[in-house]
Amino acid sequence: MSQRIVCFGELLLRLSAPGRERLLQTPGLEVHIGGAEANVAVSLARFGHDAAVISTVADNALGEAAVAELRRYGVDTRHVRAVPGRMGLYFLSHGALHRPSEVLYDRADSAFARANDYDWEALLQGAAWLHLSGVSPALGAATAQATIDAARAARRLGVKVSFDGNFRGKLWQTWNGDAAAILRQIFAEADLLFADHRDIAVVLGESARAEGEHAVAEAAGHAFAAFPHLQWLASTLRTQHSVDRHTLSAVLASRDGSWHRAPDYELETIVDRIGTGDAFAAGVMHGLVEGMKPDELLHFGLGAACLKHSLPGDFNLVAREEVQALVSQAGFHVRR
Amino acid sequence: MSQRIVCFGELLLRLSAPGRERLLQTPGLEVHIGGAEANVAVSLARFGHDAAVISTVADNALGEAAVAELRRYGVDTRHVRAVPGRMGLYFLSHGALHRPSEVLYDRADSAFARANDYDWEALLQGAAWLHLSGVSPALGAATAQATIDAARAARRLGVKVSFDGNFRGKLWQTWNGDAAAILRQIFAEADLLFADHRDIAVVLGESARAEGEHAVAEAAGHAFAAFPHLQWLASTLRTQHSVDRHTLSAVLASRDGSWHRAPDYELETIVDRIGTGDAFAAGVMHGLVEGMKPDELLHFGLGAACLKHSLPGDFNLVAREEVQALVSQAGFHVRR
Amino acid sequence: MSQRIVCFGELLLRLSAPGRERLLQTPGLEVHIGGAEANVAVSLARFGHDAAVISTVADNALGEAAVAELRRYGVDTRHVRAVPGRMGLYFLSHGALHRPSEVLYDRADSAFARANDYDWEALLQGAAWLHLSGVSPALGAATAQATIDAARAARRLGVKVSFDGNFRGKLWQTWNGDAAAILRQIFAEADLLFADHRDIAVVLGESARAEGEHAVAEAAGHAFAAFPHLQWLASTLRTQHSVDRHTLSAVLASRDGSWHRAPDYELETIVDRIGTGDAFAAGVMHGLVEGMKPDELLHFGLGAACLKHSLPGDFNLVAREEVQALVSQAGFHVRR
Amino acid sequence: MSQRIVCFGELLLRLSAPGRERLLQTPGLEVHIGGAEANVAVSLARFGHDAAVISTVADNALGEAAVAELRRYGVDTRHVRAVPGRMGLYFLSHGALHRPSEVLYDRADSAFARANDYDWEALLQGAAWLHLSGVSPALGAATAQATIDAARAARRLGVKVSFDGNFRGKLWQTWNGDAAAILRQIFAEADLLFADHRDIAVVLGESARAEGEHAVAEAAGHAFAAFPHLQWLASTLRTQHSVDRHTLSAVLASRDGSWHRAPDYELETIVDRIGTGDAFAAGVMHGLVEGMKPDELLHFGLGAACLKHSLPGDFNLVAREEVQALVSQAGFHVRR
Amino acid sequence: MSQRIVCFGELLLRLSAPGRERLLQTPGLEVHIGGAEANVAVSLARFGHDAAVISTVADNALGEAAVAELRRYGVDTRHVRAVPGRMGLYFLSHGALHRPSEVLYDRADSAFARANDYDWEALLQGAAWLHLSGVSPALGAATAQATIDAARAARRLGVKVSFDGNFRGKLWQTWNGDAAAILRQIFAEADLLFADHRDIAVVLGESARAEGEHAVAEAAGHAFAAFPHLQWLASTLRTQHSVDRHTLSAVLASRDGSWHRAPDYELETIVDRIGTGDAFAAGVMHGLVEGMKPDELLHFGLGAACLKHSLPGDFNLVAREEVQALVSQAGFHVRR
Amino acid sequence: MSQRIVCFGELLLRLSAPGRERLLQTPGLEVHIGGAEANVAVSLARFGHDAAVISTVADNALGEAAVAELRRYGVDTRHVRAVPGRMGLYFLSHGALHRPSEVLYDRADSAFARANDYDWEALLQGAAWLHLSGVSPALGAATAQATIDAARAARRLGVKVSFDGNFRGKLWQTWNGDAAAILRQIFAEADLLFADHRDIAVVLGESARAEGEHAVAEAAGHAFAAFPHLQWLASTLRTQHSVDRHTLSAVLASRDGSWHRAPDYELETIVDRIGTGDAFAAGVMHGLVEGMKPDELLHFGLGAACLKHSLPGDFNLVAREEVQALVSQAGFHVRR
Repeated sequence: MSQRIVCFGELLLRLSAPGRERLLQTPGLEVHIGGAEANVAVSLARFGHDAAVISTVADNALGEAAVAELRRYGVDTRHVRAVPGRMGLYFLSHGALHRPSEVLYDRADSAFARANDYDWEALLQGAAWLHLSGVSPALGAATAQATIDAARAARRLGVKVSFDGNFRGKLWQTWNGDAAAILRQIFAEADLLFADHRDIAVVLGESARAEGEHAVAEAAGHAFAAFPHLQWLASTLRTQHSVDRHTLSAVLASRDGSWHRAPDYELETIVDRIGTGDAFAAGVMHGLVEGMKPDELLHFGLGAACLKHSLPGDFNLVAREEVQALVSQAGFHVRR
Repeated sequence: MSQRIVCFGELLLRLSAPGRERLLQTPGLEVHIGGAEANVAVSLARFGHDAAVISTVADNALGEAAVAELRRYGVDTRHVRAVPGRMGLYFLSHGALHRPSEVLYDRADSAFARANDYDWEALLQGAAWLHLSGVSPALGAATAQATIDAARAARRLGVKVSFDGNFRGKLWQTWNGDAAAILRQIFAEADLLFADHRDIAVVLGESARAEGEHAVAEAAGHAFAAFPHLQWLASTLRTQHSVDRHTLSAVLASRDGSWHRAPDYELETIVDRIGTGDAFAAGVMHGLVEGMKPDELLHFGLGAACLKHSLPGDFNLVAREEVQALVSQAGFHVRR
Repeated sequence: MSQRIVCFGELLLRLSAPGRERLLQTPGLEVHIGGAEANVAVSLARFGHDAAVISTVADNALGEAAVAELRRYGVDTRHVRAVPGRMGLYFLSHGALHRPSEVLYDRADSAFARANDYDWEALLQGAAWLHLSGVSPALGAATAQATIDAARAARRLGVKVSFDGNFRGKLWQTWNGDAAAILRQIFAEADLLFADHRDIAVVLGESARAEGEHAVAEAAGHAFAAFPHLQWLASTLRTQHSVDRHTLSAVLASRDGSWHRAPDYELETIVDRIGTGDAFAAGVMHGLVEGMKPDELLHFGLGAACLKHSLPGDFNLVAREEVQALVSQAGFHVRR
Repeated sequence: MSQRIVCFGELLLRLSAPGRERLLQTPGLEVHIGGAEANVAVSLARFGHDAAVISTVADNALGEAAVAELRRYGVDTRHVRAVPGRMGLYFLSHGALHRPSEVLYDRADSAFARANDYDWEALLQGAAWLHLSGVSPALGAATAQATIDAARAARRLGVKVSFDGNFRGKLWQTWNGDAAAILRQIFAEADLLFADHRDIAVVLGESARAEGEHAVAEAAGHAFAAFPHLQWLASTLRTQHSVDRHTLSAVLASRDGSWHRAPDYELETIVDRIGTGDAFAAGVMHGLVEGMKPDELLHFGLGAACLKHSLPGDFNLVAREEVQALVSQAGFHVRR
Repeated sequence: MSQRIVCFGELLLRLSAPGRERLLQTPGLEVHIGGAEANVAVSLARFGHDAAVISTVADNALGEAAVAELRRYGVDTRHVRAVPGRMGLYFLSHGALHRPSEVLYDRADSAFARANDYDWEALLQGAAWLHLSGVSPALGAATAQATIDAARAARRLGVKVSFDGNFRGKLWQTWNGDAAAILRQIFAEADLLFADHRDIAVVLGESARAEGEHAVAEAAGHAFAAFPHLQWLASTLRTQHSVDRHTLSAVLASRDGSWHRAPDYELETIVDRIGTGDAFAAGVMHGLVEGMKPDELLHFGLGAACLKHSLPGDFNLVAREEVQALVSQAGFHVRR
Repeated sequence: MSQRIVCFGELLLRLSAPGRERLLQTPGLEVHIGGAEANVAVSLARFGHDAAVISTVADNALGEAAVAELRRYGVDTRHVRAVPGRMGLYFLSHGALHRPSEVLYDRADSAFARANDYDWEALLQGAAWLHLSGVSPALGAATAQATIDAARAARRLGVKVSFDGNFRGKLWQTWNGDAAAILRQIFAEADLLFADHRDIAVVLGESARAEGEHAVAEAAGHAFAAFPHLQWLASTLRTQHSVDRHTLSAVLASRDGSWHRAPDYELETIVDRIGTGDAFAAGVMHGLVEGMKPDELLHFGLGAACLKHSLPGDFNLVAREEVQALVSQAGFHVRR
């Protein structure tokens, strides 16, 4: 628990239909706590790091439950404030076969979306890394500014900045936010970027022409050119054969020009793909913090992402030993 | 199904903790559809009437599910519109013993709360009664105006107006609505009022001094004096020994000065008290529509309210024969 | 396990709505196995006796499950046949407060109702008691004859006959069975009768005028006069304050003219009242088999019936020590 | 909602074991409403059509629940009668891997099976299509006659007739019905037939020699020759690799001799295959009503069938936009 | 959060049958975390105090889950060690009516029961109070010694000692522990004792003759005489009318001779009585820490205990405001 | 039911997380009864044999439930004793994709593990076969001796001995048992051995060099050479592509030198793999008892094992007709 990693973002309640039912096909909902940045924090805490979340929740039973769930998994929640307002929600129906999963957001005007009064100097005290994602600036002007402020404060204080693109066009549209202009300010402060060619195209005002590994490599080059602080850029590569069956790989680019590609993993009978990108981010950050070599940390991040597909909920509840076992091909026997 | 009864109000999703748990004590929620006026419509449909709901819902899976549930119980939903926006929600934790039940509203800025473009002439076509409640005007200026418009259109068209006070101070405070001024305009159009001395005091600018049957009777006198269209005023009388055990009675006043009090019913081991006031309203309206005598219709209304306490959810899913069996003391043997 | 007790009757599947919901209010059903005589057998097996069931079930997964459940509780099921046909079902919705429980039978034309080819001499081999109930003869001519045959064979073979009236008018009406004539033939063979004044009035062609303990006592006198083999007549006395709260007592009459009344037990917050009469019958039979004195065995039977009210399902899953603890007032402390 | 489609058939309650359990392995059952023709009606209503069901149910809580569920999904149920009797049931245990699913019918002597007094002239008023299936005539002489009457009345009234073969040998055997003779009379009135070479062989008294697309094509030729009203014949083509994994395609033949084959769809990890044939029928009918071209409507029908495999229950609860998205290869990304 | 309260004791997994079922009547178990001292810590944390648990758990998924649940509710768990071994379990079946609840312990040889190597000086650092209970010394020689050591270290360090008698004869018998001798050493260090006349009689070698308030008062006198450090002695007074309905009061004695009795509370339809004594202890400690007057803190403790009866699980999840509302008679209306 | 098969081993309670959740991710556990030898007994009873279990359970509700579950499936449990002590438990979390399933044993010091006072002459009375497994001797010295005694008594009495290696290194380590020496004594008495090259290597003190069919064949040769009573040796061959997808085959060697290999079966979307080895053993024993030829009985055993993968729980609840249908390629159509 040597290095402290601080994640800033919204806590959400996920209300999901049971099994493969449509929303409210039967009258019950399963509840999970999520949020892109909180997912990263939980995974890092499970890997043994001192992970904290900075956020704002509603001062009611829902906000309390969200914070409690983070605490349950060992995340430091002392910097989560509770204020009057509502919690962001999302309703989820898991797809199957050829029927895609559906997310229905009900997060407008949440306590988090309205807040922008964070004392970043104090909040980043003692942190080695700050993790942010593109979801927060997409929520509105207040959180966009808060995210930029956070990134800049981190750079000022010598705290490394990790940023996960997570581009969500629909959220930006709700308030006509200038995604490119805002994200560019954040990219500019990032040491580590989780982004593919589409994210980078948005920010650099280009159009993403091609697909696949090559397109990501080319875009990474543009990113390193545009953002001098940037040291690493990582991205998963996903092929979807059906809603339940994917092939997953990942790539990592370094400022020094090195390019790494992890092996392909076949994901058959996926249990829950929400949060798999966050699991990848946490795995890569774990590797960086632990001083792994690029190939090794990329493989670790990919292994973490693969394992998340096997777990219900948004959090990647695996220990580092489990990721290690996967990447070292320990096999699938029942562990007794 | 001779007479058509139209109810105007918001459809809500109730998300409740299982059993007697606190909210999110375990990670699941039971879902019911409710809303004061919709509850009345469902009960009337179950009693065999042509009951319709006029409302506005979100054009998503949640709004669809709310409408579908009304349709399931035979309510005419052709006048429920779906528009972009969100559905009103409320989270419920059932209390027990000395721990009160808790309702956490998350209904601000719902599709219903923002709507006020109803063509009342068309919507009230063929109706004998219009049922409204004090919840709708409490939601904001738009719904306050819509409710007043509805009541006035009904009077103009010769449609009788039923109004359930349902005073919710907290909702009025969210937008600093002038409850007294607005409610007075609706009371002025009502033929039938569900209200107790506290509701009437709010509207007439008095202060509710005493409690009990006498206080209601006195307030009823004031109401008949103030509102010349008013024909009947009905109210339940409830004594709460604990969260689970109440004594329930009811009173009815007529413009002709008659005063009726129903017998006391002991409610031990209450299953769900949400919607019991709406069950009472539906029972009284059923009695009026069926031409029952005052004592009889009051007793029917009270019987309906008592039975609702035995049923999970907001709706009173009993048939008229079941209410009749209760008020005629048919006993509690297993029906085989 | 010295004495063998054989019970003849139908095995039923009970499909019940969860909690206090109406039937199919939500789309799930809880399943229990029941049947008046099987309930008695299970209770006797739990008390440590060699209890067997004679019956006919459908040769499908449902019949198999019904038999398996009896076997699970230690009942000897070697004399249950599986033949082509259907299983009798009943749907149950638990009432609450003033809303009675409802049973919806779907048992017409079951494999059991159509069967009447039992080799009673063989089946009663080694039995000390045969237990029958009024449900079987009410199902149709075949089972009526089978029940009479069983009772007569038992008498012939020196096997004592226990008969629980269990009068169900609706079942008799489905085939216009002559209840009085048929039941009279069975009463004539009974050593032990579970019946109240209404059952006896049906059989003796009288009309049950009064209610309460006195009425049962008078009817018992008539029964002893009419049926010379009859040694004991037992009945519960139940007052229902609501669906959830009853007062229960019991009476026992002997041919020698003695009359016994057990103390009153208050049953608050009843969990499940189905099968409580069968629990009483099993308790009384246990007392007789064990050679208890009349007051003692009556109290044991009543205690067994009281405990059944606390258990979901049709079976009384209590051990004899638990009944003893209740009748000896051991108190309600948590047993650790 | 321009064209009205009327479906005649039985409503069934499906009682299924949870997950992949055997029947009553644990003591609970999930309940869905189904019935081949009702499934078609629900799907058509979800696609936005004016779909109605003509049927007869038991006048109890089960019949009420079945009708309510159709109403919930927007089906017009005003022509469903409730009469004394029982509801047809079926018990289902989902298979997995190499263990086939099992259906245990308990539908003999249902209210529907005994009814044959329909006023077809009145019931078909305003309809553009009547949909029937081979299940109804297989239930007994009454429903066989009702189905023939319905088909003939439709032809007389200019209502197009759709018929889904759905041959169930076991049902015909229960009453020794002459399937060939009866079905021939219905085939003779059909404009649209869902049938494969085995169905046609039964009706034409031939023996189905070969398998696969060619066999269906040949049989279609025989059908067009034998039945002059027939315009279209459609069938799915299914290969089962295991209980959970199938390959699905479909074919369509027109009287003008054109032959259409849709692409193959891989169905891995099937959720629920009950009702997939009905989903296909509804999709094809939707295409015809909407005036799609043969290839297009066949693909739409197949897409609808594929999506049904992803949904628990008998109903295909997808919207037309979702089928369109599948056939236009919109991909499997989470819809946010 | 000014004062730190440290609780030492075992964390247990409670595996309970659903509803009012017997153990394994159906094949599922609900899981709660408990343990007398941990229950106190959770309640104090919910009241806003800095509450910590000192314990030893198994280093497996069960131990991890137990610790996580404490953390979820804000308890400081940094002093809980994980070592090889097993977790203590208890199986619970909730009683009803006249059927007592049953606890089946499976806690022998747990990781906690075997541990006795605590560095009390370090662990009590900064604490104002140490809370212990009679369960720990009853588990075996190791935990008996650990409890005595803890109490003595606390006294040495000026940390106040709270001790809840919680006498469990069966546990002492498993290792023939000398309860009187061991408990006397702990009583000797206590500032605050939760005990009734039976607990005190065990320790002082007397026999508890009478029952009721007077007996407790007399025993309290003996305790103050025997143990010079003792300042307060508190006890609940419970009358059990049935398993579901109790009357609860409480008494408090001070070294200065004052005697306080709280009002009686009627507990009808109890939800879960496990942990109610711990809720009382936490309430009284809260009152002491907050500087309430004796009558006030006793009433607060009793109110906390009453509210616990309404909540499933071992923890008293109520906030201090809820206890205040009860003792100030705020009523039972739904909180909206 | 001509031949009696007796199985000796421990009954365990399996407490498993729902679906694919981690242990205690949500607070509920599903309960199944298991135990390697009991699994074999249940499967044989389902195939129609007279199967009995000899065991020792705790004399509490858990032990009672374990025995009841065996009885439910028709196993003769008259030789299962209940003594003071605890039941062995195991906690299970089902894996998925690349995350292995996890078993957490909590079975140390169980009532079974401490028992070794069986009267084998009496217990084996009338048996044709005795089935044992390597789990029992691994539990400790008492059960190791009991297993050896049982095997020797069987040989003495002319009862054939079946032994399933089931090598569990961790269990042997808990007491430093000399696995090789103990197992050799049991192997020496076996007529039928379920073992692969690794099991045999342990016993013969060799090291298992190679993998696959050849390695098993070679080891089988060594086993026949070393153990003159041995007639048959059978083993499954399993390739794990992921946690959810395996390929399964099986081999059988006879003393006469014949070698049989069954076809490969693809197991996609495995439901529950626990107990599949026991299902194989039961299938092979069924084949031997029924006098099938080697190829046939091996295929039957493999088919039984395959079907078990489709069923939740430890027991293989399939009938012999279902295994026959699989091995005769009856297909995967819904059975109606």
